[in-house]
Amino acid sequence: MTAYDRVRRTVGEINDLLCTLNLATWDARVQMPARGGAARGRQLATLAGVARERATSNELASAVDEALPLAENEDERAELQRVRDAVATLRRLPDGLVDAIAGHRATAQDAWEAAKAANDFAVFVPALRETLRLQRAFADALGWEEHPYDALVAHYEPGMTTARVRALLSRLREGLLPLLDAIVAKGVPEPEFRRKEVGVEAQRVAALHFARIVGYDLDRGRLDASAHPFEISFTRDDVRITTRYRTDYFPMSLFGTLHEAGHALYEQGVDPRWVRTAFTTDIVGLYAVAGTSYGAHESQSRLIENQLGRSAPFWDAHYAELLATHGDALDGVDVNAFVRGINHVAPSPTRVEADELTYDLHIMLRVEIEAALLDGTLAAEDVPKAWAEKTEELLGLEVTDDRSGALQDIHWSAGLVGAFPTYTFGNVMSAQWMAAARERDPAVAPALERGDSGPLRAWLHENVHRHGRRYLPDELLGRATGSGLDPEPYLAYLREKYTRLYAL
Amino acid sequence: MTAYDRVRRTVGEINDLLCTLNLATWDARVQMPARGGAARGRQLATLAGVARERATSNELASAVDEALPLAENEDERAELQRVRDAVATLRRLPDGLVDAIAGHRATAQDAWEAAKAANDFAVFVPALRETLRLQRAFADALGWEEHPYDALVAHYEPGMTTARVRALLSRLREGLLPLLDAIVAKGVPEPEFRRKEVGVEAQRVAALHFARIVGYDLDRGRLDASAHPFEISFTRDDVRITTRYRTDYFPMSLFGTLHEAGHALYEQGVDPRWVRTAFTTDIVGLYAVAGTSYGAHESQSRLIENQLGRSAPFWDAHYAELLATHGDALDGVDVNAFVRGINHVAPSPTRVEADELTYDLHIMLRVEIEAALLDGTLAAEDVPKAWAEKTEELLGLEVTDDRSGALQDIHWSAGLVGAFPTYTFGNVMSAQWMAAARERDPAVAPALERGDSGPLRAWLHENVHRHGRRYLPDELLGRATGSGLDPEPYLAYLREKYTRLYAL
Repeated sequence: MTAYDRVRRTVGEINDLLCTLNLATWDARVQMPARGGAARGRQLATLAGVARERATSNELASAVDEALPLAENEDERAELQRVRDAVATLRRLPDGLVDAIAGHRATAQDAWEAAKAANDFAVFVPALRETLRLQRAFADALGWEEHPYDALVAHYEPGMTTARVRALLSRLREGLLPLLDAIVAKGVPEPEFRRKEVGVEAQRVAALHFARIVGYDLDRGRLDASAHPFEISFTRDDVRITTRYRTDYFPMSLFGTLHEAGHALYEQGVDPRWVRTAFTTDIVGLYAVAGTSYGAHESQSRLIENQLGRSAPFWDAHYAELLATHGDALDGVDVNAFVRGINHVAPSPTRVEADELTYDLHIMLRVEIEAALLDGTLAAEDVPKAWAEKTEELLGLEVTDDRSGALQDIHWSAGLVGAFPTYTFGNVMSAQWMAAARERDPAVAPALERGDSGPLRAWLHENVHRHGRRYLPDELLGRATGSGLDPEPYLAYLREKYTRLYAL
Repeated sequence: MTAYDRVRRTVGEINDLLCTLNLATWDARVQMPARGGAARGRQLATLAGVARERATSNELASAVDEALPLAENEDERAELQRVRDAVATLRRLPDGLVDAIAGHRATAQDAWEAAKAANDFAVFVPALRETLRLQRAFADALGWEEHPYDALVAHYEPGMTTARVRALLSRLREGLLPLLDAIVAKGVPEPEFRRKEVGVEAQRVAALHFARIVGYDLDRGRLDASAHPFEISFTRDDVRITTRYRTDYFPMSLFGTLHEAGHALYEQGVDPRWVRTAFTTDIVGLYAVAGTSYGAHESQSRLIENQLGRSAPFWDAHYAELLATHGDALDGVDVNAFVRGINHVAPSPTRVEADELTYDLHIMLRVEIEAALLDGTLAAEDVPKAWAEKTEELLGLEVTDDRSGALQDIHWSAGLVGAFPTYTFGNVMSAQWMAAARERDPAVAPALERGDSGPLRAWLHENVHRHGRRYLPDELLGRATGSGLDPEPYLAYLREKYTRLYAL
């Protein structure tokens, strides 16, 4: 066995363990019996522990060192470098810190649930302080130069820094706020059809139908229901998605399914050569995933949900298929009214209910607070005040209570600090992919006009999906679009779309 | 950390890995997308490999040796001895053999499927020869004295030998055949109600209801559908069962569910002290299970399905509840006719369709063939001939083709040689538990007469379930019933029951 084969074997085993961990996570969120949680938590910890043990073993580190000078081509070299870097990072993280972060998660989530129940952020503050202490230690162990937040942002989006995030958000803000003001000034009320009752079974049939329409392969996946929708992969041939059915708001399952199907296309589309390798394994994050970063992943889900799934040509082609299941709720609503309705803009204090235009404003608010918490310029107990100020400033809304304000997100209680900006990276990138696909493949735009997303998806497959984690996000974007992360195509897309829909 | 704590920690991790392996197996059999199989196979192999690696590690072996002389009580000593013996056995099995057995499984199953499709045993013969070669090597590695089959029988049922199995089966045959002759002579036709149409949803509601009635805790379990029903445990707090719905034969899901619920009671009932220890882990078999042997496990399923679930008093109490869902099919069928119908005896060439009385005759046939295959006195290609002769001799039936004859069971293609006798051990033991419970707890019999299985289940919990794998089957039986494996209570039960039902 060559050193390269030994690296491949160990990474393959790590991937197997992490795919099984994903299955155990999926099961816990979709169908686990009420009392199975405690044992499941131990099982997840053991799987992660075994995977980490293998990833930090001397055997793997020395096999990589031995194999690297012998790499036979660029792919092999990149693969080995990725493993070497990941192993080095993991080995820098003290066992005690990793255990403490994992151990604090349940405590923090309990505190968050209790705080929400009491509608009082103060109940969450002690747990948040500990989360911040641990995440700061985590950032220090990962290493950073200008700002501790840099390390966490780059953990979810390699190559990113606080400075880059701030510049991006600042440009977005500049572009978004005038557009939002113009729309709000129009005073268009929420269209009624969105709240009309649609039964779960009708929604499920439509969700499956439209998931197939955008290319989700159900022979290599399945759709289930869960309280918090998600996509998860146990190999490219078993990529599952979930959705949430609200009988009084059918767009949730319809667009939620398109969103998760967009994630799934990335996972299902990875080149079979990269299965069980470092290019389908986040070794540092101990997570089996083919997407190269959180942002790149989100760009695929936003592209399918928004750029494609909320576009007029898509519904010109497919509206009749939706009427087959949702006809009663959509009685008297023509396709133009439907497209206006699913793109309705209304500032809300709640991120997960935000429309496409205001979503990034929610991210701006969180990023400023996270960075300040981490560098100590904001104290945990002052979060609600900062939250209210920024909500007023960005969304023009008053925060009336902690539950719908600073307690609304699960992220901090789950130990995710630095992940929020990746949602905005996803939005921004999604428009870059779309613009590049239209520009570089002449078949894409005319097909989209006919409601056929085939050429678009083929371009995405060729330029994004099949590569898995072969390229870092900046590389991937550069190869396919010729530029780095750039907010202009996204702003142009929003301006064009809303100017048309709202006759601005 | 003491040596005992180190043993516990490692066995706990092994149990976690094997519980996750069980979840991955359950998912593959219940809901996995069509194309997920190949990757899942590799993941299962990796989990088993990691568990085996930990179980055969020098660290565990030396921790056990260090801990054993320091054991503080009988439970601890028994636990450490169990680990020591299992580790010694596993370390005797050559890696190459374990890999070859695992590797041959897919080939053998493919060959079995192909042979069934062609209805030709000859297609399966080359794979069966390899299975036998591997199983003989496995028996030799495990060690045996009188007959190679001894090692395999004891692998599934510790303490058993070929000689004990033969003596038991011979006594059963002596008791069963005259009873069967007398019943067949009566010429009672199959009651029609069993084939009446009942919809899947009605069957599912009834299955859940009766699973609850016999004590299955759905907060710590769930019921799903699968082609081949089974019970599997991911810890005592998550024990799942499946059933199969045939709209033209509702007894399949009804009694199948009672059967699997019987298995589940064992797993759900184990003492929380034994969770993640050697007393809920089959370390040699690399299987997370609380039941102390295949036979003991089967005794619980048979007890609930047959001794309880096919008894007249049970249905006297619960028949109205079944009519609530199955009323149309059971229109005009009174409870006595129902009880006669669900106990109808009719020799069939197919084991899984066998009634309670003829079931063990199917086992006798297989045990004689298996033992002869293993010691070389029967050649693989001669199985269909031997099968036909023994079917004629034991069941008085002609075997018309391989598909419904020697190709009917999955066991040999799955590498299970020596497991068949455990079904009969289960039948025999089930009557011993029932007789002992009635005899030793005066509350049991009168409650059963009222259709209340509570005191019976309490006795089973106290004497069987809570112990998990703390005692080997002979010990468990001896402690609770005062005797070893004894066919007389089972024969007495069958004689009494059929004499009454068939007015013999």
